[in-house]
Amino acid sequence: MAKIKIDAYALLKKIRAEKPVVHHLTNWVTIYDCANIVKVLGASPVMAHAKEEVGEMAKIASSLVLNIGTLTVDFVEAMKIAAISANEKGIPIVLDVCGAGATHLRDQKSFELLNEVKIDILKGNASEVARVSGEAVRTKGVDALAVDKNMIQLAQNLAQKYNCTVVVTGKEDIITNGQKIYVVKNGHPMMTNIVGTGCMATSVIGAFAAVEKDLALASVAGLVCFEIAAECAAKNSSGPGTFKEKIYDCLYHLDKKTIDRMQRVER
Amino acid sequence: MAKIKIDAYALLKKIRAEKPVVHHLTNWVTIYDCANIVKVLGASPVMAHAKEEVGEMAKIASSLVLNIGTLTVDFVEAMKIAAISANEKGIPIVLDVCGAGATHLRDQKSFELLNEVKIDILKGNASEVARVSGEAVRTKGVDALAVDKNMIQLAQNLAQKYNCTVVVTGKEDIITNGQKIYVVKNGHPMMTNIVGTGCMATSVIGAFAAVEKDLALASVAGLVCFEIAAECAAKNSSGPGTFKEKIYDCLYHLDKKTIDRMQRVER
Amino acid sequence: MAKIKIDAYALLKKIRAEKPVVHHLTNWVTIYDCANIVKVLGASPVMAHAKEEVGEMAKIASSLVLNIGTLTVDFVEAMKIAAISANEKGIPIVLDVCGAGATHLRDQKSFELLNEVKIDILKGNASEVARVSGEAVRTKGVDALAVDKNMIQLAQNLAQKYNCTVVVTGKEDIITNGQKIYVVKNGHPMMTNIVGTGCMATSVIGAFAAVEKDLALASVAGLVCFEIAAECAAKNSSGPGTFKEKIYDCLYHLDKKTIDRMQRVER
Repeated sequence: MAKIKIDAYALLKKIRAEKPVVHHLTNWVTIYDCANIVKVLGASPVMAHAKEEVGEMAKIASSLVLNIGTLTVDFVEAMKIAAISANEKGIPIVLDVCGAGATHLRDQKSFELLNEVKIDILKGNASEVARVSGEAVRTKGVDALAVDKNMIQLAQNLAQKYNCTVVVTGKEDIITNGQKIYVVKNGHPMMTNIVGTGCMATSVIGAFAAVEKDLALASVAGLVCFEIAAECAAKNSSGPGTFKEKIYDCLYHLDKKTIDRMQRVER
Repeated sequence: MAKIKIDAYALLKKIRAEKPVVHHLTNWVTIYDCANIVKVLGASPVMAHAKEEVGEMAKIASSLVLNIGTLTVDFVEAMKIAAISANEKGIPIVLDVCGAGATHLRDQKSFELLNEVKIDILKGNASEVARVSGEAVRTKGVDALAVDKNMIQLAQNLAQKYNCTVVVTGKEDIITNGQKIYVVKNGHPMMTNIVGTGCMATSVIGAFAAVEKDLALASVAGLVCFEIAAECAAKNSSGPGTFKEKIYDCLYHLDKKTIDRMQRVER
Repeated sequence: MAKIKIDAYALLKKIRAEKPVVHHLTNWVTIYDCANIVKVLGASPVMAHAKEEVGEMAKIASSLVLNIGTLTVDFVEAMKIAAISANEKGIPIVLDVCGAGATHLRDQKSFELLNEVKIDILKGNASEVARVSGEAVRTKGVDALAVDKNMIQLAQNLAQKYNCTVVVTGKEDIITNGQKIYVVKNGHPMMTNIVGTGCMATSVIGAFAAVEKDLALASVAGLVCFEIAAECAAKNSSGPGTFKEKIYDCLYHLDKKTIDRMQRVER
């Protein structure tokens, strides 16, 4: 793989100009941060989960974000209704298989979503993605364990199987649409000391997918911007509490020069 | 309209002294911030939504805040039970028609609440309030579009129709009880870059309504205090993340001198 | 009672090394802060409430935290399933009777949990614990009123009745397993000006209980660390908003020297 430069700023600028609506059915733990990171990017988050309205809400959105982090059976039914509507409209769906591997319910519902609707971007950490790929791994709650597998190959196979883009987040992120493979090396260890960076990354990807049809590129650009903001935040904070607030400040002020200078992407 | 001075501090002082209980059935996205802004004001927030207890909880409260931002059919049923109890006790109810216009469910449930129980303060942004008034407008998720209407007239008609106070938030806020009309010009553009300022404003109004029978005045005083805190926060922060935390700091320390000097109210 | 020194740091170090999974069914208002405080401590929070998975999730956890702050009947049913599983595995359960006394539902569900499953640590403020003890008190929402009772005696009786550790939080915290009695005098008045410090304290106790079998000692150590972090945060913040973020920063950096110097424990 070789270092490349992508024009992440062009997409960020597009988000700020177009303010796309990003409809979420997400995790109750991080729902505020999912909404707020999308807002701070310049897009327009909508959180709606009533079965009676999710289909209609997805129709006014430019992308749909699903996150099973605090799933219930009913909540997943609402996700399916929203997803069918999103598929009909042709807007991209990002699925975060948060906690897959921790319980049978999470595995089963991940597979149902992948098989019953068209998921465009499948996102998780190494252990979650490995589990969804059918590989035998054990997870420790929602935190990733090291997975003794060739993750790139696994992600690529999964992307081909579901005809989608697969995003594996970690110290280095893997993004593949089954053909192209990207690795994003931005980010900061402090991200693992707070709750919500994974969910926020998913929502950011949802916002970028709303303005760019090449979903692998959109995912890479989203992760680059979010993780550069985290690097900047780490430099300007005194611990995990102030770090999270500074992510918002840094992302809000993120400019072309900073993105171009700090991005670390390989392909 | 002419510039006037209101004694917002007198009401803030009353909240700090009496610590009224403000019962919420609110938005899951912003529930923490709704509770915390009420707490930082000096009042006592209670969030309870079980049908089995909402009626009883409303009876120990001094005001009730309803927010349909993440409504479900069941959740609105709980709202109605709480509202009937609040009506019986004679405490004011504030309804935030968050996202009205985005889906039929939101419109329908807004109308049900307005027609089945007595709402004392109806609050939304321009497009939400226009929708509830029956005017044909289109909204983009929960974010307000400019509405090509005479909002003051529309708000006044709506206040007369439902015999309530109507609060329309935006760059300038309109508050009317059908007779008196106030405009609050405080606030800061940074408020539109984060999620939750609208919901927090509603909760603040709920706290002021708990200590002042003139609900138009209570709403004006609440918005003045909250938006002055936001102006102060904008001056003392480096972006939207730190801005939100500083709103709490500034509101907590808000004093008579600052309120009197910074308020921008017209009538 | 006499001043003593406990080795709270030894337990904090153990949490940071072992990263125990702490399963929560908690309050929707404070769910992010409950998860994040556990994460910042170095442990691994999991929030899961679907009846279909809570039993399985409890089995991969090292402790279970239950908080009735925003209970519904269904949610308490899920708590019971999780609790039965936790009892089978032999991991400690912490129950925060948040808001007990405010409504009949909260009282009834507190008693059901205490009687139908084995609760290992029962935690509340003075009015909540008094109510659960059967003493006639009136509460004002979830905020504690002064209780005109000998709280230490009351807590001790309750601990003996349910064969558990009782934690009564307030300006001074009482911790007793029915025999030993501790008082923790750390903490800062600013903790009462924000929402969530009570729930966060419960989650911290859950994390300490995951690594120490003496649950009274675990509770004392957890409160000492959390409240020293709050004292440090109060010194380094400009109000309640920045105070909360600094609690995370201070807890994350908390070291042996600081704990040993600042702890104020009596027995």
